[in-house]
Formats: sequence, structure tokens, C-alpha cells
Amino acid sequence: MKTLSTSLSHGGLQGVYSHASETCACDMTFAVFVPQQAAQGPLPVLWYLSGLTCTHQNVMDKGEYRQLAAELGLIVVCPDTSPRGEAVPDEKDNWQFGAGAGFYVDATEAPYARNYRMYSYVTQELPALIAREFPADMERQGIFGHSMGGHGALTIALKHPDRFRSASAFAPIVQPSTAGWSKPAFQKYLGEDETAWRAYDACALVEDGARFPEFLIDQGKADGFLDDGLRPWLFEDACHKAGIPFSLNMREGYDHSYFFISTFMDDHLRWHAQRLV
Amino acid sequence: MKTLSTSLSHGGLQGVYSHASETCACDMTFAVFVPQQAAQGPLPVLWYLSGLTCTHQNVMDKGEYRQLAAELGLIVVCPDTSPRGEAVPDEKDNWQFGAGAGFYVDATEAPYARNYRMYSYVTQELPALIAREFPADMERQGIFGHSMGGHGALTIALKHPDRFRSASAFAPIVQPSTAGWSKPAFQKYLGEDETAWRAYDACALVEDGARFPEFLIDQGKADGFLDDGLRPWLFEDACHKAGIPFSLNMREGYDHSYFFISTFMDDHLRWHAQRLV
Repeated sequence: MKTLSTSLSHGGLQGVYSHASETCACDMTFAVFVPQQAAQGPLPVLWYLSGLTCTHQNVMDKGEYRQLAAELGLIVVCPDTSPRGEAVPDEKDNWQFGAGAGFYVDATEAPYARNYRMYSYVTQELPALIAREFPADMERQGIFGHSMGGHGALTIALKHPDRFRSASAFAPIVQPSTAGWSKPAFQKYLGEDETAWRAYDACALVEDGARFPEFLIDQGKADGFLDDGLRPWLFEDACHKAGIPFSLNMREGYDHSYFFISTFMDDHLRWHAQRLV
Repeated sequence: MKTLSTSLSHGGLQGVYSHASETCACDMTFAVFVPQQAAQGPLPVLWYLSGLTCTHQNVMDKGEYRQLAAELGLIVVCPDTSPRGEAVPDEKDNWQFGAGAGFYVDATEAPYARNYRMYSYVTQELPALIAREFPADMERQGIFGHSMGGHGALTIALKHPDRFRSASAFAPIVQPSTAGWSKPAFQKYLGEDETAWRAYDACALVEDGARFPEFLIDQGKADGFLDDGLRPWLFEDACHKAGIPFSLNMREGYDHSYFFISTFMDDHLRWHAQRLV
């Protein structure tokens, strides 16, 4: 692991790191914030998965999570959203596929299967690195994210209910197998057989029996992607049928940006801290 | 005035606007945050001046000011740091001069005097526009900034003690007429006669009799520009000799970045609110 930068912030250390990822067969960059309480012992880990077009940096710059994470004593880990590099296949002009759009799946189709393995990366390789290199208590993990990263957080929580104690999302894509901006990516990463897509679709996972203790979702009502791509009511319905407690806050006037995310960041950090600290 | 974007954030409206500036003879962009309390009547205005290489956007993205400004009821105005455009003379490879480096002076030298009039822009043209277009109580104004923008805030406050009730700075350039990164710019904007520079130098202004009720400065001790460019002790000394109350917080471990600024943003907002609200 290579340290790219560190800055003291709100008493803790905001770092950016890179490493040669075996899973993604390329160098991967990620951000970690470690509150100063880590000097007294390992701290819970909260994973933040970012949305389409983002890197580790967007939430680090604009998420406004450090002040309260420092107070609550939460390590916040922010991975990149895809493999990157000259050798990684990409569609340069397509923001919904390739670089910045890994969708937290393990691709099975050529030529993507070699690098686009973000599911394994964020559930196996990166957690092992975090456990090894940071003062992290891996028995206390939570996960959240935004948009495509909200999809990542919900699906990963549903597939690892024993690992994560808490899960939430800002404006998540809840049914990527039917949304216009994710369906073409699923086709290219996972192939034409749509049954394989269900393992990466929060609604389908719940329909197929996956369970998690409870979810919190915040969604802006002025979000331009609400009706076409996000549709949190589909997941609300699936959770309702499955008996999974589900808090959906529809926020009047808020859009899809980090201005929305940062506004409700504290609510989500407190939600996770109640279950982790 | 043209609205480039607006987003609801922390209950208020974060907007980005542009207008054809007569003063700078080019289009200028700026950001304004208006808390929701503006519905009940005009609110105090806090000016934030940014540092070298920045636009209006850096502090808007990374300053973490909205949550508390929304609570305290402060309008926050963030101007750009220089004129910009094809017709504006610039030195593309020089981050300490030209675009992003207006130094809040009115240039007197050709070819810069036509556009580089950031002092008049932020003290006259933009305030008039803010007063006209926003629910701003111009009887209650404060000013702060970072680095080159800290220099701007200190000098403008010292030259307008009747207009501003509060002034503070993060890691300000306090004596630009002798610092390596500002002296060449002063030469090009203001000419070789260094007596003309004193009107834009916080230390010289105090030495020459300018006064302001009190200042707050936060400065990171791990700031790489501390000894060469910033040197807050020079201003502390000038204020001490002049009997101007001066709070200088030297912050162990903090650097020059927005990770530092955002950490102490709340302290500064409260400082201004105590004098404005």
C-alpha cells in the first residue's frame, strides 16, 4: 500500500492510498478517514460507495462526513467506483459504463471479466487491506453509498448480513436490472441471461430471500433521476413484503448532488453509529 | 445576472451565478448561499475570499460552511479570485499571477489594468449586485478568506472598518509586498514603486494608521507556506503595536488545504455570527 496524501482534518487523519489490486488487475486508489480516538483502540468501519462518474475523491471533498465521524469515532472508507488504467477496457464517452461505472459487480463477460470485479474488490480484497493497515475493528462494520453506490451498499449488505450491522443509502438505484442507465452495463458485464443479474439487484435479492435487519434511505424529490432510474418505492415494496423494516425519507426540493448528500450525512452517520459504536 | 445552478442544501439555497462585470471587463462567476431564514427578512452577509488557483467553487465544494451558516442565518458570498476569459491577459503556466491570482488589487499597469480590478469588484460592483438581487442586509457584513483571500479579507476590512463588523482569516498572506509568491504579482499589477503596494498590504496598512476592531486568524503549523509566504506573526506584531485585538490560533499538524479550513470553519462562522446576527 502506498500513501498518496494525508491531511489532518477535524482532529483525525484523511488519507488517500493506492495499491496494486490483484482482484481488479490494476492499481486502485481509495480514501480512509481515521478519527483520533483510534489512538485508544480499533474503531468501527463505515464503508461509503460512490456513484456513477465518481472516484474516491468526490465524497472526500464534498460529503462533509469528517466532523461528525470524528466525534462519533467512525473510520470512513471510500473506494473508487471501478478499475482504471490504460490496460482496462473502457468506453470513454459513456458515463454509465466502464471507468467510473463498475456497478459493484464481478463481470463474467469478456473483455471486462479480467478487471471489472468491484464486488470482490470491495467485499474481499480491500477489507483485508483495511484490516491489515488501519486501526479497524472489522467486527463492527456498516455500509452506505449514493446512487450506484447506494445500489452497491444495499446489495452487499443483503449478501453479507453477518458482516454488516448497518446499511443505508442516499438516492440508491434499487432495481438496476430494469433501469435504463444500468441495464446496458449489466448486459455487458454479466451477459444476456438476466437470471445472473438478480444477484446484483437489491429488489431481486429480497424477492429471492435475502434479508437484512433494517434499511435507511434518503431520497430527494427534486432528483432528476427519481422516476427513471432510482424508484426507491420498488425497494420499499420489496422490503414491506419481506417484513424488513425500512425508513424512506422523501426530501422535498433536494436533487441528486452532494448538496443533498451532505445535508443528510449527519443523519446517516448517527444511524450507523447507533448500530456500530 | 444569470443563474448557472441552484441546489437546496441544509435547508438553504446554494446558487452559482454569473454576470457581465463592468469593473473587470469580462463575465464573472460567483457563489451565494442563502439560508431559509431569508424568507423572514434580510440576513447578514459574510464574504469569503478564496486563495491562489481557486475559483468560487473550491470553498463551495470543500469549505463545509452550509450546515452552520444555515443554522446561524448567514448569507455566504464566494467571489472568483480573478478576471477570466480569452481577452484577459494571463500567464498560463504561472499559478501566482493572472487567472486565479488577482490578489484583490486594482492593477494600474498595462496590460493588466483593464481587467485585474478585483479590489473594486469585490468592494463595489459585486456588493451592489448582491444588495440588488439577494435578501441581504448590507448593514451587517463580515469578511473572511484563505491565504491570498485572507490577505484580501484583512486589507479590505482595514480599508472599510465602517462597512464590516467582523473579519477573520485562515492562513492569510499578511505581508504580500515582501513575500516571494506575491511580490512579482504586485510588481506586474502595481508597478515598481513599492509605496503603491502599501495600500494592499495588511501589515503596511496597520503601520500607516488603518484600524479595525479585532481580528481572528487560524494557521496550521504544518502549512508548507508558513515561513516563506504567510508569516502571521508579522501581522500579530503590527496589530500588537497598533493596539488592535488579535487572536492567532496556531494549529498543530494542520496544513494549508481545505481539510484545515473546513476543520475550523465553524469557529469562524460563530465568530462572525456573534458580531453580525
